[in-house]
Amino acid sequence: MTAVDETRAGQRAMRRAVELAARGAGTVLPNPVVGCVITAGDGTVVGEGWHERAGGPHAEVNALAQAGDRARGATAYVTLEPCNHTGRTGPCTEALIEAGVGRVVAAVRDPWAPAAGGLERLAAAGVVTEAGLLAAEAEGVNEVWLTATRLRRPFVTWKFAATLDGRSAAADGTSRWITGEAARRDVHRLRAQVDTMLVGVGTVLADDPALTARDDAGGLLERQPLRVVADTHGRTPPLARVRDGQAPHWVATAAELGRDDAGHLDLAALLGALYERDRRHVMLEGGPTLAGAMIAQGLVDRVVAYLAPALLGDGPNALAGAGVTTIGEAVRLRPREVVQLGDDVRVTAVPEARRPASGPASRP
Amino acid sequence: MTAVDETRAGQRAMRRAVELAARGAGTVLPNPVVGCVITAGDGTVVGEGWHERAGGPHAEVNALAQAGDRARGATAYVTLEPCNHTGRTGPCTEALIEAGVGRVVAAVRDPWAPAAGGLERLAAAGVVTEAGLLAAEAEGVNEVWLTATRLRRPFVTWKFAATLDGRSAAADGTSRWITGEAARRDVHRLRAQVDTMLVGVGTVLADDPALTARDDAGGLLERQPLRVVADTHGRTPPLARVRDGQAPHWVATAAELGRDDAGHLDLAALLGALYERDRRHVMLEGGPTLAGAMIAQGLVDRVVAYLAPALLGDGPNALAGAGVTTIGEAVRLRPREVVQLGDDVRVTAVPEARRPASGPASRP
Repeated sequence: MTAVDETRAGQRAMRRAVELAARGAGTVLPNPVVGCVITAGDGTVVGEGWHERAGGPHAEVNALAQAGDRARGATAYVTLEPCNHTGRTGPCTEALIEAGVGRVVAAVRDPWAPAAGGLERLAAAGVVTEAGLLAAEAEGVNEVWLTATRLRRPFVTWKFAATLDGRSAAADGTSRWITGEAARRDVHRLRAQVDTMLVGVGTVLADDPALTARDDAGGLLERQPLRVVADTHGRTPPLARVRDGQAPHWVATAAELGRDDAGHLDLAALLGALYERDRRHVMLEGGPTLAGAMIAQGLVDRVVAYLAPALLGDGPNALAGAGVTTIGEAVRLRPREVVQLGDDVRVTAVPEARRPASGPASRP
Repeated sequence: MTAVDETRAGQRAMRRAVELAARGAGTVLPNPVVGCVITAGDGTVVGEGWHERAGGPHAEVNALAQAGDRARGATAYVTLEPCNHTGRTGPCTEALIEAGVGRVVAAVRDPWAPAAGGLERLAAAGVVTEAGLLAAEAEGVNEVWLTATRLRRPFVTWKFAATLDGRSAAADGTSRWITGEAARRDVHRLRAQVDTMLVGVGTVLADDPALTARDDAGGLLERQPLRVVADTHGRTPPLARVRDGQAPHWVATAAELGRDDAGHLDLAALLGALYERDRRHVMLEGGPTLAGAMIAQGLVDRVVAYLAPALLGDGPNALAGAGVTTIGEAVRLRPREVVQLGDDVRVTAVPEARRPASGPASRP
């Protein structure tokens, strides 16, 4: 494997591959997003492809199909190391070798042991290989899957809505609606990009949310996330909306998953079980106690806060019991994006002390 | 008085006058900001001026000085009706008449009875007068003074800093620092634009703030706001920093101002007393109980929230006891501006149900 490809044409091709990869966000789960651009010797793009949905062809296969004979001797830029593994589709390494590709540049190595080793397999077949070009961009677009794969638990996005003074409901528990229509539509777009919704049983008992993903007209989307209730004692009512059959659900109890030292449902075990069920992206939607436990255990990877220009002065906060007692222990976040949605503000941020996305390939 | 001046040149001149007026923000208190542009018959600008500081010459006088003889027969565009009153300076009406100005266009009528009647006085002297051109813009730039004058109490800006989950301090009361340096510098810029700082005695006892306005290097600014403690029972310690002599202070007690029906310091009386002391812009900086009482009584005109990308999960909220028990009663705000300051977000918003700025000229 040689050094990073530094040519402008190479960077341009990989940047395009990252763009293509992003198109698969949400729909490829539990797979990674991947983009591939194939260029001829003179830099001309002869093939483009991306992984569109789980079970469908991989990015390399789509790009090779477009390139046809022009793939012979060409360079393939791929955002993630080509898989060396037969899953629902055959290994991409073999497809690249068979098409006569002369060089393969991968942005990020595959941390998933069963599919890894792609570059070595290619090199053994005489293909020139490189790794690391635009690695940060490619890591970014694939953050959900890479984090999940490295940590062997789903990536967790905690979403909450609150007033400017931090209340997620009024004193009497009412919370419909704190935010406006644009923000609420945005939440449904977020739900459509995850494969799992998670709430605590307290939220089910208080608000009885459906946790489905709907389009702007209120219709059910085709892909629905799994609806999970963290429910230590199994108190979810038989007629709770999460059980309504509009989407799959799982009432996760301590009887099934065990308890942590504090006697609550073992959240790490819950996330591990979700990973085993091929879940890669969990959206945590409350309540404050569950969110606090997840934050305290370092199990939140991204925070999406919808802040409404309103004041309540009373009522529950979005977060409780995160294990912080003094200002020096505050959970500091790095802001990623601040967007106005109608009258509301959406702040996206990531915990500063989160486990690095570039950790070891496999953990015990 | 004829109809609104609708020519492009007139609009351009008034827009410039509004710009000039804005330069006096903060430094003119307790006076209004005023800008004046004088144009010759062909539309050429022959004089510009603005009110720079209380006690200094008015905008019209500055513009007339620049125009000199060219003011004869010219049109003066003024953001606020010229005063008809001898205060620290003579009436602007007489200066305009004496200079031979042929036409005066005022954006907003003066709601302050002692100085009003300027346009009538000018008309009586044969000057053509108009009112209402770009009134909304001119109202906006002068919002603080117009609101104060109409309501006969200072304009109140409530500023607070909080984490994304709405905490203004950790569980143990520590709060230094929730926000970053850029946000804290911004607060000092805000303090330099008001003439009064207001906190509750609880904040003095908990945080002992200095409430001074400082420059970016930490030095005391020349103009310092009056530091006021709302202190029903007179519990402010003798050695509290607000008493340190670096800036004037006033410990306002119920013994002096009376109590409201709930037995607390009468806040309307406090604001009325501040108005009588020529205070026009109060910055309320906490704590939650005082802010709640001010919000509940409709005494907050603008909210400036500094939101830090951090989570605490415990500790006091920025607001308490605002009299809201259910979501339908939430104090809804209209967002004015969302700005990122370093890692923090500043949201500026105004209460939707606030008393209209265009109320009657004088109230009982």
